[in-house]
Amino acid sequence: MDEIITLDYGSGGKKTSRLIEQTILPDFDNPALNALGDGALVPGSGTLAFSTDSFVVDPLFFPGGDIGKLAVCGTVNDIAMCGAEPKYLSCALIIEEGLKLETLERVLRSMRGAAQKAGVQIVTGDTKVVDRGRGDKLYINTAGIGFQKFVLPGLQAVKPGDAVLVSGTCGDHGTAVMLARSGMMDGDVRSDCAALNRLSEKMLASGAAIRILRDPTRGGLATTLNEFTEGQPFGIELEEEQIPVRPEVRAACDMLGLEPAYCANEGKLVCICAADDAEDLLAVMRSLPEGENAAWIGRVTEDANGRVVMRTGLGGRRILQKLAGAQLPRIC
Amino acid sequence: MDEIITLDYGSGGKKTSRLIEQTILPDFDNPALNALGDGALVPGSGTLAFSTDSFVVDPLFFPGGDIGKLAVCGTVNDIAMCGAEPKYLSCALIIEEGLKLETLERVLRSMRGAAQKAGVQIVTGDTKVVDRGRGDKLYINTAGIGFQKFVLPGLQAVKPGDAVLVSGTCGDHGTAVMLARSGMMDGDVRSDCAALNRLSEKMLASGAAIRILRDPTRGGLATTLNEFTEGQPFGIELEEEQIPVRPEVRAACDMLGLEPAYCANEGKLVCICAADDAEDLLAVMRSLPEGENAAWIGRVTEDANGRVVMRTGLGGRRILQKLAGAQLPRIC
Repeated sequence: MDEIITLDYGSGGKKTSRLIEQTILPDFDNPALNALGDGALVPGSGTLAFSTDSFVVDPLFFPGGDIGKLAVCGTVNDIAMCGAEPKYLSCALIIEEGLKLETLERVLRSMRGAAQKAGVQIVTGDTKVVDRGRGDKLYINTAGIGFQKFVLPGLQAVKPGDAVLVSGTCGDHGTAVMLARSGMMDGDVRSDCAALNRLSEKMLASGAAIRILRDPTRGGLATTLNEFTEGQPFGIELEEEQIPVRPEVRAACDMLGLEPAYCANEGKLVCICAADDAEDLLAVMRSLPEGENAAWIGRVTEDANGRVVMRTGLGGRRILQKLAGAQLPRIC
Repeated sequence: MDEIITLDYGSGGKKTSRLIEQTILPDFDNPALNALGDGALVPGSGTLAFSTDSFVVDPLFFPGGDIGKLAVCGTVNDIAMCGAEPKYLSCALIIEEGLKLETLERVLRSMRGAAQKAGVQIVTGDTKVVDRGRGDKLYINTAGIGFQKFVLPGLQAVKPGDAVLVSGTCGDHGTAVMLARSGMMDGDVRSDCAALNRLSEKMLASGAAIRILRDPTRGGLATTLNEFTEGQPFGIELEEEQIPVRPEVRAACDMLGLEPAYCANEGKLVCICAADDAEDLLAVMRSLPEGENAAWIGRVTEDANGRVVMRTGLGGRRILQKLAGAQLPRIC
């Protein structure tokens, strides 16, 4: 097979078939996908969770991950945050003409590894090729189906006094990608890209009064918390000193002019739960590697204006707004 | 709101929220999507059909359709071809910086119209913005979930003597897009872009011994039939004079140097069924507008080499191979 992808590979004809059969299927070996029908048939039951994300991260590879791992973990996490068990993924590739086949293979291997680790199957897919200069090497869309196992009450159940927990250090992914993009990879800062379904399931099975779960990706922790409080009769107050940030991430953020609270994570979740359950829940989270740095970072406040406020170590207070512009374009 | 999309709109912050809330949600009004969780929760049951397609068509608008209508109908059809009832769609946008907001709105309105017409709901989505020169105005991925209503036996049930039916004229979509791309829109040639779920359901409910259904999109009728016969102990013989092609499509194909049998359709299906049921099934198909030009175009033959052969009006025979290269790049 040629070593780079040409437009022929997207024609729907022989070259498309060869690409799919020789390059893609071996990585995602499963009967539903191998049948190569227009769609996959899979067993269903109960309430479904359904989610989609396109991944346009630049560069494709960065310390701690790549676009393939990201595309699997991102959609797995979106489903897990609904209280559902992720089961099936789709994978749709938009390849820019000229991509090295070897690069595609490396990404697909990474997707396979991430899917196996997360316990999900890639059951259906699509491949398109666009002309040179009309894409950027590779974009991947994944959609996912999961089966609801737990009912999360959501924002309406949030009460002043509730605890705000985060499952680990903030800003790792965004900082790693920005460093990789700028060519300043020092290897210390690695993306946290990981599947969170095992963690969320264990948390939900603990019986703690969890109101809502969300993975703070684009826009980071600050933006996710603002999404929680927007238009609600409560605010959130964070203790800056309690927010876990790796020293190397903090140093990189200082250098790049970024704020860790706005930097994307791809393997962390934020949880609002009853304060009485917070310590027990933290212990559950810390019992898994993906939650080992879990921390109680703040609390829900009475605030008619739905503000997110950061209390600094020096006793100051500043309002954390939603990310205003493109601090970090194409981070996922 | 600004009139063009900038990178800020993809940051995950305020501008992304505004774009989603002011531009996207009004078009897809439904509770699951409005909740803006990481994924949608929808009721499930039985065996699920799951499919995905990315749409990279150039140009975005063409006679008879646009990328939005295509993105809805394409995924609806893939699910319908599995014998399932399409219910829920996801919609993921990759927007190139600089796209006019008005263009996006026009596409979204078209998606809404197509979804309503097909009886499906868009329940979850994602929006990314890539820098200028890293996309081409707009790419759309849709994934879809349907519930299986009919079990199609598939290729293993195909027998020599079986009838090959097509639901209408061939090559309309591919030809319309190629004319639009070359600036030669005469308005006569229109894409056949349409949802086929009503047609397929009526066909399957008729009780006819249908072996397999497929919508011949990229690569057209010839490529789809080759996908059927590849590696199988049977071939297909087509009667060229029976294949319905609009005169204006034939004329345009002659001018563009295309072969209608290889030109994409986006609102047609091919069906293999028992010969005894073919006439009754054709009557069922013709009772709906989307099947009004349905025709019996060929039959399954004994052929150890799985060839698709076209018998011409003059008594000649030629082998129709799978599309070899990029006859029609970015047609869908």
